[in-house]
Amino acid sequence: MFRDRIRMKSLWSKVVEAETAAALIKDGMIVGMSGFTRAGEAKVVPLALAERAKREKLKITLMTGASLGSDIDRMLTEAKALSRRLPFQGDPTLRAAINRGEVMFVDQHLSETVELLRSRQMGPVDVAVIEVVGITEDGGLIPTTSIGNSATFAILAETLIIELNLSQPMALEGMHDVYIPTRRPYRAPIPVMSPDARVGMPYIPIDPSRIKAIVVTHKGDSCSTVQPPDAETRAIAGHLTEFFKSEVSKGRLTETLAPLQAGIGTIANAVMHGLIDSPFHNLKMYSEVLQDSTFDLFDAGKLDFASGSSMTLSVARHDDVLSNIGRYKSRLILRPQEISNHPEVIRRLGVIGINTALEADIYGNVNSTHVSGTHMMNGIGGSGDFARNAFLSVFVTKSVAKGGAISSIVPMVTHVDHCEHDVDVLVTECGLADLRCLAPRERSALIIENCVHPAYRDVMRDFCREALKRGGHTPHLLEDAFALHSRYRATGHMLEQPAAQAAD
Amino acid sequence: MFRDRIRMKSLWSKVVEAETAAALIKDGMIVGMSGFTRAGEAKVVPLALAERAKREKLKITLMTGASLGSDIDRMLTEAKALSRRLPFQGDPTLRAAINRGEVMFVDQHLSETVELLRSRQMGPVDVAVIEVVGITEDGGLIPTTSIGNSATFAILAETLIIELNLSQPMALEGMHDVYIPTRRPYRAPIPVMSPDARVGMPYIPIDPSRIKAIVVTHKGDSCSTVQPPDAETRAIAGHLTEFFKSEVSKGRLTETLAPLQAGIGTIANAVMHGLIDSPFHNLKMYSEVLQDSTFDLFDAGKLDFASGSSMTLSVARHDDVLSNIGRYKSRLILRPQEISNHPEVIRRLGVIGINTALEADIYGNVNSTHVSGTHMMNGIGGSGDFARNAFLSVFVTKSVAKGGAISSIVPMVTHVDHCEHDVDVLVTECGLADLRCLAPRERSALIIENCVHPAYRDVMRDFCREALKRGGHTPHLLEDAFALHSRYRATGHMLEQPAAQAAD
Repeated sequence: MFRDRIRMKSLWSKVVEAETAAALIKDGMIVGMSGFTRAGEAKVVPLALAERAKREKLKITLMTGASLGSDIDRMLTEAKALSRRLPFQGDPTLRAAINRGEVMFVDQHLSETVELLRSRQMGPVDVAVIEVVGITEDGGLIPTTSIGNSATFAILAETLIIELNLSQPMALEGMHDVYIPTRRPYRAPIPVMSPDARVGMPYIPIDPSRIKAIVVTHKGDSCSTVQPPDAETRAIAGHLTEFFKSEVSKGRLTETLAPLQAGIGTIANAVMHGLIDSPFHNLKMYSEVLQDSTFDLFDAGKLDFASGSSMTLSVARHDDVLSNIGRYKSRLILRPQEISNHPEVIRRLGVIGINTALEADIYGNVNSTHVSGTHMMNGIGGSGDFARNAFLSVFVTKSVAKGGAISSIVPMVTHVDHCEHDVDVLVTECGLADLRCLAPRERSALIIENCVHPAYRDVMRDFCREALKRGGHTPHLLEDAFALHSRYRATGHMLEQPAAQAAD
Repeated sequence: MFRDRIRMKSLWSKVVEAETAAALIKDGMIVGMSGFTRAGEAKVVPLALAERAKREKLKITLMTGASLGSDIDRMLTEAKALSRRLPFQGDPTLRAAINRGEVMFVDQHLSETVELLRSRQMGPVDVAVIEVVGITEDGGLIPTTSIGNSATFAILAETLIIELNLSQPMALEGMHDVYIPTRRPYRAPIPVMSPDARVGMPYIPIDPSRIKAIVVTHKGDSCSTVQPPDAETRAIAGHLTEFFKSEVSKGRLTETLAPLQAGIGTIANAVMHGLIDSPFHNLKMYSEVLQDSTFDLFDAGKLDFASGSSMTLSVARHDDVLSNIGRYKSRLILRPQEISNHPEVIRRLGVIGINTALEADIYGNVNSTHVSGTHMMNGIGGSGDFARNAFLSVFVTKSVAKGGAISSIVPMVTHVDHCEHDVDVLVTECGLADLRCLAPRERSALIIENCVHPAYRDVMRDFCREALKRGGHTPHLLEDAFALHSRYRATGHMLEQPAAQAAD
């Protein structure tokens, strides 16, 4: 049954149980696994590894593309099998262990991990565990629903373990485009000149003699937990659509906009979804993760092409899209995340980047990662790759969280992932602030009036008024900059008199 | 005399006095002027403009490459002629006006200004004022000691004013390489594949009918104010040299290192100077400003080639280098700052970026711009272009300032220009912290032990110990994060008992 998917017959003898494959991974090793935004991760070998770690000392450094599904990070964490983890994660159990200091988490720009490996600033990769839909006649690996860092992990690893996933449709073959930059100092330009450019191979070329084990699985990807659009995310999408219209009227964009990137998650997905009812057409995406909205835009006839590094779908869309992947295939490319997120390509194409802020400040700095400046949420992911190099860098967030107890916009963010220079436009359900070519004093006025929730506007205005007395290019009261956070920590609400304020 | 430098004879009739040329600039206009790190700025038209602004209402938006010499920014500020200024400056009088909120300063990554202009997100440029050594037969502009943003300003401006500087040697001709990226969505890769690649034209191609005035000057560039190496900068250079040696021994670098970038200023210049007495050889630079150290390295036989956007020399070196420029010319290229600082090229070449931190924190975030988080010093300049895209991003600073009253390393920086993800190595005279692939808790331990001044180590250790009790990926006490800054503001010293501490 599975043998027709292993076209290099000499590899048939490599098929083993997950436990046998996992035994190739030893304590202290650096392991690279496939998986990006809950798509295409190795699913059974890591679980066998977790089982073993319950019985014997086994701690590894685990690198992936981005977040994993299938509870892999949870089970490895519970088994205390992780000493170091990078470059991104999204699991609550692992998150807690990171925040307790039990797992050393290295939060990296997603385009950079393999650069560090190739230049031997990290690594070496001892074992790579890669999910595939099949293996070509010459041993090439055909990835599944993500590429992520799989290509470079597979090329660099001493030992290769393959998970052949029979639940993933063979029709995925041909959708991938594996291009690896040439070596410095002889590196050539990355030849991607449009989102639909195919510049590489449809599989990962490797030396098949390094395949030491193949494990056959039937486990599907975990579905995304993206929430449907709500009134607030619809308002955010509406503000952004109006802004794009205005840019078109000023001759800065056409109705086909520019290649679009949207970060993972509910808000960015909802914003993209909002384009269905916009006047824009013949859109293209040059993004990292392709979510439900990508396929909704295809179905609505709005989207011509989408390039990403993974497909992550909700329960509602997963089976339909995967079983009809042929319908979309000619309009889709999955690339290594180093290419989907490459500064060179993003800058060249002139991407519009839409990413989610956890917290933003009145001067336009953005925190994407640290709750209260201390506790890691997921990681910076690709947002920095896109925001820094985008033609237009948009950040979106709801103006408040926890029923209004937290303002997403504060006087000073408690952690900076994207500095003021990398944030062109900030949008909440309240409105949009176009920060381009403004000085900090101008930005704060605009952000407070347009983006801050009404219940918090006076607090922000008061802060600015007092800070202005001290002067400076970016006026601040350092001793009060985190007063809202301290109050939230003490009382559970950022406002002194929340009820009175809310009643205004 | 000057006519042989204007080879297009029809332009001879355009020669006028500075006042006549300056009259082309009207109140409210957006003006782009040449000038990058005190080199190659327009010198007499802006002064005539300042004189006029004393007599009549005249406020402009002034864009340059980077900082200007010849007191231009001071005189324009004193004449209240500036409403908006970007993307960088370095003048004390202008700085004070910015910090008082009188001039709106837009601090930008130096590679990005012309992207915003070309895509009409800023602008349009009404007038460009460009210093040249000469004009070619077909009206092309031959820049002087910098290119900066001159090429794009000149190409986009409605009206062109030329300053023909006879004090700049004609031998500069041929040293420039003017390449402008093609238009999106048809933009091609930037073909620079090594620091010595010539990919453009030796002059700025323009439509000469837009030259409305030519002013002849003899004013030389202002010299740089870079200080000679001292014991501390020598120690910083020493730590970095040892680190490079160790990287070579690990097979991550060769003895020719990688293309080097060094930020402007005394410390970065001293670090480069330190390479004269190192085992490294056949070095190349891919940088923005070429300072004394570049020519010292040439003279020492250590440097094969240098690419930059400007040459800024001290009094001691200026005349010698300029009058013997023929000696260096075959090993030098000046490029538009968009190319010298382009993420695409920096990432491709694998540059080692060495930039100066104003303030760094125990987790590796860097403040390059804001004193006490509020008062602008100069601007982020090109440091973000390099730090984000470098193969290896190094930040250097002395561990203390103001005789020990200020620790350059603090629990939390008061403004973030370079987030933890963009800082690989931090160096002070005390030592070096290699932060690559470390989690924040590991970074803080290393930075405190290796880089923090001994007088401040206990304070930092205490902060970490208390912060750890609260947990988190990046432990912090938000209410105490700026305690050192508050104490400095109140007492003039960051330490409670400076004398006792210093005696330890």
